[in-house]
Amino acid sequence: MDDANERMNKRLQQLAASAETTFWGFLGCEFVSMQDNIITIALEAKTHHLNPLGIVHGGVLSSLLDNAMGIVVMMARPEDKVVTTNLNVHFVAPLYEGRLLVTAELVHQSRKMITTQGRVVDREGNLGTMGTGTFRVI
Amino acid sequence: MDDANERMNKRLQQLAASAETTFWGFLGCEFVSMQDNIITIALEAKTHHLNPLGIVHGGVLSSLLDNAMGIVVMMARPEDKVVTTNLNVHFVAPLYEGRLLVTAELVHQSRKMITTQGRVVDREGNLGTMGTGTFRVI
Amino acid sequence: MDDANERMNKRLQQLAASAETTFWGFLGCEFVSMQDNIITIALEAKTHHLNPLGIVHGGVLSSLLDNAMGIVVMMARPEDKVVTTNLNVHFVAPLYEGRLLVTAELVHQSRKMITTQGRVVDREGNLGTMGTGTFRVI
Amino acid sequence: MDDANERMNKRLQQLAASAETTFWGFLGCEFVSMQDNIITIALEAKTHHLNPLGIVHGGVLSSLLDNAMGIVVMMARPEDKVVTTNLNVHFVAPLYEGRLLVTAELVHQSRKMITTQGRVVDREGNLGTMGTGTFRVI
Repeated sequence: MDDANERMNKRLQQLAASAETTFWGFLGCEFVSMQDNIITIALEAKTHHLNPLGIVHGGVLSSLLDNAMGIVVMMARPEDKVVTTNLNVHFVAPLYEGRLLVTAELVHQSRKMITTQGRVVDREGNLGTMGTGTFRVI
Repeated sequence: MDDANERMNKRLQQLAASAETTFWGFLGCEFVSMQDNIITIALEAKTHHLNPLGIVHGGVLSSLLDNAMGIVVMMARPEDKVVTTNLNVHFVAPLYEGRLLVTAELVHQSRKMITTQGRVVDREGNLGTMGTGTFRVI
Repeated sequence: MDDANERMNKRLQQLAASAETTFWGFLGCEFVSMQDNIITIALEAKTHHLNPLGIVHGGVLSSLLDNAMGIVVMMARPEDKVVTTNLNVHFVAPLYEGRLLVTAELVHQSRKMITTQGRVVDREGNLGTMGTGTFRVI
Repeated sequence: MDDANERMNKRLQQLAASAETTFWGFLGCEFVSMQDNIITIALEAKTHHLNPLGIVHGGVLSSLLDNAMGIVVMMARPEDKVVTTNLNVHFVAPLYEGRLLVTAELVHQSRKMITTQGRVVDREGNLGTMGTGTFRVI
């Protein structure tokens, strides 16, 4: 990791720390890394992240994607205030208790719109959820 | 409210109670009513439901929709095990701390697929989020 | 139908006529009516609108929704130039050759974003497709 | 291109030829190639593919994605009858008359569901549209 990358990762660690009192922290998200413009975050999925079927709740997975995509957007537009306008999530396989890894990356940006995509995998790398999100500069 | 309706609402209250240890309870969802096949749930949005901009987190809103839609699906298919396969959410206006009401209803069901739609409004009835979800009988 | 409504419907007939050389006309769309803010258009689905399975092609149905939603948006924002930014379509049941009716209506509008929803039904009113679309003022 | 790949491409050329009387042919789609599990198709966008703003119609772009994704699905499940259940499209930048290239690939498949993603670019490779699609084995 070069110096610029290291500085960026430190800044993201700080951002994550300041988000502890928001839904990011309540959910239990951890910032993992930013490398080659791919953001990785993690969640230790516990009982309270599950739905009554015993699999990770669709809302948790949507939240994880929104969080990882949100960091992608903040990195792309550090000076702008940006909100999610659309989130589309495909739940392709069930995910269970344990460590979940979430990656997200930029698909496209114009002056006012940013489009991203992301994935949630389990510890073994099995894909459970994928989604796309659109964000708008306000 | 007639007797059948009242029994249904009691059953839903019980279901909600048993979901207290799942993500439903962790988030803080309350079952409100089922009337004319429209499910209503509520959330008292607090600081820990917000994102760093001070508005309700997109993941919270997606979770609320998934929860309300999930009840619609359970009512439509009480004997089946059903999972969310797709959730599409439009965030049309920011929502803030305070009471949020979430409604959801059935759009269509076939043997294996159920499609639903839902909305999140604030106390004054202003629409903040709307979405659609597809569920699959497994 | 009152006078204002009649004038509006005439204007929409003219708009549809001027769209004959665009994809609207190529596909075979007809403007049917606008009443209580619900736009209705129609398509006589023929062999060339089908996919190899003999059912109406998903792209045709997506196009119909985009067209009907586009009229909703034009009516809501007659002075603005507006483009589709997101289209999400649920194909809930197959549709076949014959007359298809497509309705669309406004869900929400802010200064820069307009959100709509729509449905495609067959002659008997059976729901085949439903979708939501987001449009942006440029 | 090795022998197996060449045979596959020939088979896809034949499939495309047999689809000439369906919406695939009516729209003007051409099969280009399948390489490393990425399907590429093309469309020569003409006046009748545009919307009244003079840009390629959202329905055309949705149709192109559905077509390219449909081939991905046919290759993944040659023995099965499969239908599109959900199509989600982000229109990130306008596309104009001229040659459009559409790529699609598999994201995930389970016994009954197949999830795909795709992109539409112009001659210079500029991204105009991206989307995801879910298909169901019937």
